[in-house]
Amino acid sequence: MTRLAELAAQLGLTLEGDAELRVGGVASLEDAGEDDLVFVRSEQFVPALLASRARAVVAPVGIDVGGRSALRSPDAGRDFYRAVRVLVPTPAPKPGVHPSAVVDPSADVHPTASIGPTCVVGPRVQVGARSVLYPGAVLYDGVRVGDDCELGARCVVAAASVLGDRVFLQPGVVVGGQGFGLTGDEEGGLVRAHDVGRVRIGDDVEIGANSTIDRGTLSDTVIGAGTKIDNHVQIAHNCVLGEHCIVVAQTGIGGSTHLGDRVVLMAQSGIAGHLVLGEGAFVGAQAGVHKDIAAGERVFGTPQRPNKDWAREMAALTHLPELLRRVRALEREDE
Amino acid sequence: MTRLAELAAQLGLTLEGDAELRVGGVASLEDAGEDDLVFVRSEQFVPALLASRARAVVAPVGIDVGGRSALRSPDAGRDFYRAVRVLVPTPAPKPGVHPSAVVDPSADVHPTASIGPTCVVGPRVQVGARSVLYPGAVLYDGVRVGDDCELGARCVVAAASVLGDRVFLQPGVVVGGQGFGLTGDEEGGLVRAHDVGRVRIGDDVEIGANSTIDRGTLSDTVIGAGTKIDNHVQIAHNCVLGEHCIVVAQTGIGGSTHLGDRVVLMAQSGIAGHLVLGEGAFVGAQAGVHKDIAAGERVFGTPQRPNKDWAREMAALTHLPELLRRVRALEREDE
Amino acid sequence: MTRLAELAAQLGLTLEGDAELRVGGVASLEDAGEDDLVFVRSEQFVPALLASRARAVVAPVGIDVGGRSALRSPDAGRDFYRAVRVLVPTPAPKPGVHPSAVVDPSADVHPTASIGPTCVVGPRVQVGARSVLYPGAVLYDGVRVGDDCELGARCVVAAASVLGDRVFLQPGVVVGGQGFGLTGDEEGGLVRAHDVGRVRIGDDVEIGANSTIDRGTLSDTVIGAGTKIDNHVQIAHNCVLGEHCIVVAQTGIGGSTHLGDRVVLMAQSGIAGHLVLGEGAFVGAQAGVHKDIAAGERVFGTPQRPNKDWAREMAALTHLPELLRRVRALEREDE
Repeated sequence: MTRLAELAAQLGLTLEGDAELRVGGVASLEDAGEDDLVFVRSEQFVPALLASRARAVVAPVGIDVGGRSALRSPDAGRDFYRAVRVLVPTPAPKPGVHPSAVVDPSADVHPTASIGPTCVVGPRVQVGARSVLYPGAVLYDGVRVGDDCELGARCVVAAASVLGDRVFLQPGVVVGGQGFGLTGDEEGGLVRAHDVGRVRIGDDVEIGANSTIDRGTLSDTVIGAGTKIDNHVQIAHNCVLGEHCIVVAQTGIGGSTHLGDRVVLMAQSGIAGHLVLGEGAFVGAQAGVHKDIAAGERVFGTPQRPNKDWAREMAALTHLPELLRRVRALEREDE
Repeated sequence: MTRLAELAAQLGLTLEGDAELRVGGVASLEDAGEDDLVFVRSEQFVPALLASRARAVVAPVGIDVGGRSALRSPDAGRDFYRAVRVLVPTPAPKPGVHPSAVVDPSADVHPTASIGPTCVVGPRVQVGARSVLYPGAVLYDGVRVGDDCELGARCVVAAASVLGDRVFLQPGVVVGGQGFGLTGDEEGGLVRAHDVGRVRIGDDVEIGANSTIDRGTLSDTVIGAGTKIDNHVQIAHNCVLGEHCIVVAQTGIGGSTHLGDRVVLMAQSGIAGHLVLGEGAFVGAQAGVHKDIAAGERVFGTPQRPNKDWAREMAALTHLPELLRRVRALEREDE
Repeated sequence: MTRLAELAAQLGLTLEGDAELRVGGVASLEDAGEDDLVFVRSEQFVPALLASRARAVVAPVGIDVGGRSALRSPDAGRDFYRAVRVLVPTPAPKPGVHPSAVVDPSADVHPTASIGPTCVVGPRVQVGARSVLYPGAVLYDGVRVGDDCELGARCVVAAASVLGDRVFLQPGVVVGGQGFGLTGDEEGGLVRAHDVGRVRIGDDVEIGANSTIDRGTLSDTVIGAGTKIDNHVQIAHNCVLGEHCIVVAQTGIGGSTHLGDRVVLMAQSGIAGHLVLGEGAFVGAQAGVHKDIAAGERVFGTPQRPNKDWAREMAALTHLPELLRRVRALEREDE
């Protein structure tokens, strides 16, 4: 149980109400008990707050919380999750190498790092301070992992790839697989390029479960600092992603495509290879992108269309069967 | 080799023909040898049956099987696969913990359960009777697995998730990864919510290879009993799926979406977050759903359209290039 | 450092220029230093070559390389990557079984094969000469792996599947999972078929990270020799793929579909079950295929359309909103 005043101080938020109130957990408005901290994002959720058993809330400044004790915040969602980190901390695994892990003698593992059961750490690998490898993570030869990283169970990092600090790989991620560049061979078969590039991942990057990022062919595949990638995402060889991009689940990016900073790719979108998407470009869910996108532009559909055009065309499409009949009628009158 | 009469008795089916005939295996009509059991779903397959070498068949009541010995069934496909389970049983791995597995002393593993090579079972985990963990499966702290479950090689269950009885996870599944809920941070970067919810999976749920189910943010992500999920499926944080749903390969469901019972999502479909799909709703392959679907409704296309509208519009679209010419002609006549 | 004359001899290419020149690595034109070998695919890249520091180039016959030493090739891309294999070889892991691997006594592992840390090799498995299992790979009972195969970290092969020679599985691949064939059960639930088929994979097949290939139901799922499959691909039970097919990332193929030789499925395409795609058929990115495709045909869109029709219809669609207005105008004049 944490005193509300203490929590407010720790988060740098203003407290209105009972400083001595103690909170023991967090919950949604529906599930909250008396000791749970909750949050409301806007006025819209106040009725649910009033109906809840919660006595303490993170709330935007100026919203009436009906006598609850409130931590006032300019961004209630963000600060609530900061509170969650304090109230429900993730237990940090013990530092050191689990006896079932296989660590090459030439690897350089920081003494504060934690290498979990059945992990495999190859020759010349570096693992930084306080970084955690969950069970079964595999680092191939020469991989470098920065400080405060978290590598989920069974993720694989290959191709001497380099991870910055605070990188978070969820379980099953594969970084540094071979790219899918094919040429014909002399007998009419297919042969893959022999990739020698790496993957370089900036600080604060997060990559979702079972996503894959292929190594570069000659130069590196690059993921810019702060970029967040969801589950089942495919990023091909030689892609360069800017900083603070958002790539939602099941999206794929073809080889050598470059994204500026703060690009957003919604779920199941597909971006062809060798394209450039400017800073702040936005791609709608399931869109198919085969041409460059200028900075700040929004596209939808397959093939891609500017936002408004696509909306207009999709609306018009619903009138097309009727339009066919109307044109036939006009033609008959003309006969 | 199993006597046909014995098999009939075991499956509760009526036998017509040679009770003493013995079957040793199962096969398709094309590949069947004399000792193989086959099946026909309907009259349509009888010619292939007559051309086959099989002497024993599972067949619907009333279909002429040309003198073969027949196990008569109201659902020949289903009862054939029941017979397959008898004739070609999957060998059950030996109970007990393999010496290469790492099981935390605080874990509670039923003595009849089987923990395979290199599995990792974390603190306070429970594994029920006769459940099997194939090699490399990883259970994080506090996970609970019911009875008669089968967890494929290298699957990962995290977030103190709870699995019912007879749950089947195929290799590479990730249950309980972090959700993809982002907010801005104070310096203009992105920060993920700190999820504390679990995943709760009902009895008889099956999840395909490399599929992922994210943990809930505050409350739980829920998969209803009997629901079957194919490979490469993404189910985001806080989703609630009803019972007996079918989710075909490479489909994605956004955060907080609720599905009623018996919803069917065909392959590569995408469902946005915060939606409600009513009981028995059907979503066509590759459809993009951004609005609620009423119970029993069928939608196709991106953006989603009712079944018949979409079919009509897609048919009309093939006439559009010609329609453009026809309207131009009408305009010319008008000039 | 390798003498250019020696490299030319090894690759069977004609050398023009300084036979004594030594190359130590490979690079893109942008990144090349003096000792790096580069390549140009066509005249188009010659200006970049002339601006680069590289002194040695793989180039098509007849292209002016401005005094650089040139290895002349009929396919510069292919021969450059052959040179890369020579200049930057992948170090082969040591033969033998790592002490942390778990190999069943009944398995037959060739003495030149390499079984990496924490691998699990089941009963009656065969692993051929010089084949390499990277850390955490799992082979279920009865799997057969040919010669010179490479199985990436944490891939899983089940269902007594059979791999030819020189098969390359990237990390996280699952071969031989259960198919997604469902029937109703007696209480109104769903029950999966009990698959007993295998997966058979031909020589020189490559499969990308986290892709999945389900076992056959009664007969086998088959991948023809030389076929290349990218990441996150789903191939369902009983599919039969011909030789030298190309399946790009995040594509899915439904059960029992047959592909002829040299079929190309671009990224995120979806092919329904029980179809036949003729030799050399081509499916555009994100297309949805629900009907057979004749040999050599090219389709795009959902639902699939012949190449030219689709292009025409998509172009016409951009005129549809305007067309609606024009038809309204015609109708008004008619009134």
